[in-house]
Amino acid sequence: VKTVVLAGGTGGAKLAAGLQDVLGEDVTVIANTGDDVEALGVYVSPDPDLITYWLTGQIDEERGWGIRGDVFTVFERLVRLGEPDWFRLGDLDLATCLRRRRLMDEGMRQTEAQREISSALGARGCVLAMCDEPVRTQIRTAGGWMGVQEYLVRERAGPAIEEIAFDGAEGALMTGEVADALAGAGTIVIGPSNPVISIGPILAVPGIREAIATSSAPVVAVSPFVDGKVVKGPTAECLRAVGATPDAEGVAGHYEGVIGGMVVDSGDPGPPSIGIPTVYVPTRMDSPSARRRLGERTLEFASELA
Amino acid sequence: VKTVVLAGGTGGAKLAAGLQDVLGEDVTVIANTGDDVEALGVYVSPDPDLITYWLTGQIDEERGWGIRGDVFTVFERLVRLGEPDWFRLGDLDLATCLRRRRLMDEGMRQTEAQREISSALGARGCVLAMCDEPVRTQIRTAGGWMGVQEYLVRERAGPAIEEIAFDGAEGALMTGEVADALAGAGTIVIGPSNPVISIGPILAVPGIREAIATSSAPVVAVSPFVDGKVVKGPTAECLRAVGATPDAEGVAGHYEGVIGGMVVDSGDPGPPSIGIPTVYVPTRMDSPSARRRLGERTLEFASELA
Repeated sequence: VKTVVLAGGTGGAKLAAGLQDVLGEDVTVIANTGDDVEALGVYVSPDPDLITYWLTGQIDEERGWGIRGDVFTVFERLVRLGEPDWFRLGDLDLATCLRRRRLMDEGMRQTEAQREISSALGARGCVLAMCDEPVRTQIRTAGGWMGVQEYLVRERAGPAIEEIAFDGAEGALMTGEVADALAGAGTIVIGPSNPVISIGPILAVPGIREAIATSSAPVVAVSPFVDGKVVKGPTAECLRAVGATPDAEGVAGHYEGVIGGMVVDSGDPGPPSIGIPTVYVPTRMDSPSARRRLGERTLEFASELA
Repeated sequence: VKTVVLAGGTGGAKLAAGLQDVLGEDVTVIANTGDDVEALGVYVSPDPDLITYWLTGQIDEERGWGIRGDVFTVFERLVRLGEPDWFRLGDLDLATCLRRRRLMDEGMRQTEAQREISSALGARGCVLAMCDEPVRTQIRTAGGWMGVQEYLVRERAGPAIEEIAFDGAEGALMTGEVADALAGAGTIVIGPSNPVISIGPILAVPGIREAIATSSAPVVAVSPFVDGKVVKGPTAECLRAVGATPDAEGVAGHYEGVIGGMVVDSGDPGPPSIGIPTVYVPTRMDSPSARRRLGERTLEFASELA
């Protein structure tokens, strides 16, 4: 019986690493692909790759993305050759994205390409793209609509968010791999990633929200707030943009009907009651043992809910 | 008035560099694209790039290809990810090929993409792809047909050549840029590249041979034999495969009807008469001054023929 984790960027990826440490091959990650972008001639899939780098111990933890020790030789040359310079990609990271593009050009589905990449790099857990069709998260600011990478990287998440859309999500299909993983899951965990732009696109793929909501397995979400604060990224802004409060309660409300329990940071200053079963544990994951411990606590809590 | 050089790999590229040293912007190179190959997810165009690296002083002269100081980080990672390992490409070289692919994916013609690349890298002379359609030189050995890169790189030019074909050449079109360059040429030089598989594909593009043969400009070929010997590559094998002798006379015969004169190495032990006007000068190009000197001598000889 496998544990399925929904994950976007850093928080979800760290928890996936902690769960892999506990469960080995018995963890399957469903990864957000709404941040995907074609840039520099390659197919960039930031969240599935970030998760893969976390699962394989290659992540540049200090920088928060990319591969430890990676350099930017090809990127810098591409800029000299005339490519835009706002989307930086290290050499090793670029190799991943070039490999993905080649596999997909050959006719491979994105799910298959990501599995091939993750397994070639030595991940024990399985990393699944949330779907095979392109879904592109779009952010509307006063300056108009833009892709999520443009917003996060080029605009440094500065402008206020007025609206969020998942372009292409309605036409996407739940893959056989995702359907099988959810149907066979013993536990489903929503990782502490941005609930709106990291987990939101996954739940927007037709069939996935329903499969989770109707699963007989316990479904728990881990709040992305540590000590009541956002660890990284525009989580608060995104929650506000969809009318939710930027705290654990807002996250629980955002997942209403999907989750059966919440894991909230023991330092959370939020309201004592969240309306569903809640466990308070330390959720900061700044070491392998902290990641493993949060994985264990989350699994324990889920098994109590079952 | 411009000088037009037909060139493939090393010899032609070195002469192009010598001529650029003399003429600056007034040299246009028509480069063989029959060696092009899609590999590692990028569009590799070995001869136009080799020429570009020679014209911009970036060539790894010792290795004979690629860029000086380049490393193979991305290539090695791609192999780890499952890509075939026979076609090595340095990081900076790969950036060129990725840029080319992106420009062509955007709808740019190969000619335009190469000009953009060459000018971004600082070439003073103009590098033109011989055509915009894919032409793929094929080599038949006892083991069957294979692409020229497979033959040269993977098979290390080992097996005997039984037949040579330029797939796609009949359907290719002379570009406006090539037509203009040849129509406006004051001198046309066929560089000391392999006459069969480097210059042959250029002359096989419908219209190019005729445009050269009927040009009012003097047309001279520089023999690729130095001291009667091949400097690099399977020149002798290729000439034999098309029924020509592997010497300056064989080269002159191969270009019959196209050229009006030959530049032959002063150390050439071949027959004294080649049937057309011939000048004997040192053709080894192992220094910038030797390359420039050969360029000057070739231009002088051509002007005497005019």
